[in-house]
Amino acid sequence: VTSARGPEPSEPGGPDIGDRIRASFARQRLMRTLGAELAAVRRGEVEIELPFRDDLTQQHGYLHAAAVTAIVDSACGYAALTLMEPGVEVLSVEFKVNFLAPAAGERFLAVGRVLRPGRTLTVCSGEVHAVTGASRKLICAMQATMIASRSPDSGA
Amino acid sequence: VTSARGPEPSEPGGPDIGDRIRASFARQRLMRTLGAELAAVRRGEVEIELPFRDDLTQQHGYLHAAAVTAIVDSACGYAALTLMEPGVEVLSVEFKVNFLAPAAGERFLAVGRVLRPGRTLTVCSGEVHAVTGASRKLICAMQATMIASRSPDSGA
Amino acid sequence: VTSARGPEPSEPGGPDIGDRIRASFARQRLMRTLGAELAAVRRGEVEIELPFRDDLTQQHGYLHAAAVTAIVDSACGYAALTLMEPGVEVLSVEFKVNFLAPAAGERFLAVGRVLRPGRTLTVCSGEVHAVTGASRKLICAMQATMIASRSPDSGA
Amino acid sequence: VTSARGPEPSEPGGPDIGDRIRASFARQRLMRTLGAELAAVRRGEVEIELPFRDDLTQQHGYLHAAAVTAIVDSACGYAALTLMEPGVEVLSVEFKVNFLAPAAGERFLAVGRVLRPGRTLTVCSGEVHAVTGASRKLICAMQATMIASRSPDSGA
Repeated sequence: VTSARGPEPSEPGGPDIGDRIRASFARQRLMRTLGAELAAVRRGEVEIELPFRDDLTQQHGYLHAAAVTAIVDSACGYAALTLMEPGVEVLSVEFKVNFLAPAAGERFLAVGRVLRPGRTLTVCSGEVHAVTGASRKLICAMQATMIASRSPDSGA
Repeated sequence: VTSARGPEPSEPGGPDIGDRIRASFARQRLMRTLGAELAAVRRGEVEIELPFRDDLTQQHGYLHAAAVTAIVDSACGYAALTLMEPGVEVLSVEFKVNFLAPAAGERFLAVGRVLRPGRTLTVCSGEVHAVTGASRKLICAMQATMIASRSPDSGA
Repeated sequence: VTSARGPEPSEPGGPDIGDRIRASFARQRLMRTLGAELAAVRRGEVEIELPFRDDLTQQHGYLHAAAVTAIVDSACGYAALTLMEPGVEVLSVEFKVNFLAPAAGERFLAVGRVLRPGRTLTVCSGEVHAVTGASRKLICAMQATMIASRSPDSGA
Repeated sequence: VTSARGPEPSEPGGPDIGDRIRASFARQRLMRTLGAELAAVRRGEVEIELPFRDDLTQQHGYLHAAAVTAIVDSACGYAALTLMEPGVEVLSVEFKVNFLAPAAGERFLAVGRVLRPGRTLTVCSGEVHAVTGASRKLICAMQATMIASRSPDSGA
């Protein structure tokens, strides 16, 4: 397991997978604006955490679906990136999300996993859990298609 | 046509549709945090506009897909709400988005439209255009399912 | 576990869950036309099997994506139905599928599972495996929303 | 307009677009098994028609959602193919469908349209109308991603 703060040298994808993901994540200014942080990076699986904040809510005071979607899309994209060769970037082609329960919690943990890797397209599944103290509730499920971009300016 | 800034009294859904939508939109704190604004409200169709801002970008400097998704999901939800009786709220059950081109532009205009209204479920389609001067490019397409919530605390 | 051919009396949902699912399945004439069969029925999880047949192929000789989709949508719908009270029917509101590999195999096994049950809406995930001898390959992933229908003629 | 039965020589994509689509469609044995027919082929838009048949129904006697999905997925795929160079085939990467009303009708007309063409990925939107005499009702909406396959045996 390569955690976001200290990759293991025994990691099959090399000791620098976590570094590459962190460097890319740090350039996503929206993630900083929302207050999201990388929580874990493993080959084929990434976790992103977002603490609740009043200025990210919808009309009932819950975390806005867009903030929930932002972290799970990002977790899926980085999960795909962990399986790519260096120099490649990943873009979201498309995704689908179901919202399973109101986003009520102290913090929100998004997990993205690669379902089927590919040289061009990678299919991921993701989920978001609302965490309050020791309790944890599944609030969102995503299925997403990512594309490897070998030039930063290409569209999908 | 009920514009976001001045509803027409001849509007079939009553002169207050725009007021209801604006009141709900104003309670979505994330929309304010992103800098999004209601641009137009008609029966079955809502437009939301978001100016480009550096702190909403992804790693290549384009507007982040999550910000694009946020405004089109919101436009779809409010389009559904324009056809609901007073007192009802709308929640996103699920949506699917395709990203069609990089989100490069001065501002972004999301349009949500009701495809099939219903007492419980309303199906919407949405799109986002990147606008730069007089040019306008389609960058995102959404298909979404909304649910009427007759109590503000119920989940989907 | 309530198998398709002999429900266990110890099943928490009652011994007749398998009977209800089989009775409904038998009325789906398209399933018979395709040659699909119920392979397993458990609370919250249903399996449907489809043997390869030449007249169900696409232009490259693989099983057509529509046949793959048919069995996994049906498996998800019946998984939802296993958690409903008697007399209720289930309709697909919407689903999304990713095709992960060509549908090459002797037979195809679709598994549908309930991700989040609900009185009105139930969210399911599904997958299809292509089976050839002892080997088994994941070829399709689905995320679906089902609605409980308390009158057979109501739409979604 | 290149109809399925006689392409116009003035068609921008060349007189043989309709021929290529018809040749590929004829190799989709599932389409024949269902009784589906190409109804129209234009650059970027294809229509497929399916007459109602008792052996294609679900448990309430309506056309099965899988048959509805089959024709609209196929219409989207062929719409994408009309914009591809000769020798290329098209595979469905993924799609999402919403079912908007029961599939009750004498026949069903699926229309697929290219929303955003691309060398690798093409995004389409589709819809299905139930037709009874002179009346026509929208029953299904699809959003789909297609991939150009330059070798018939490659997966997505």
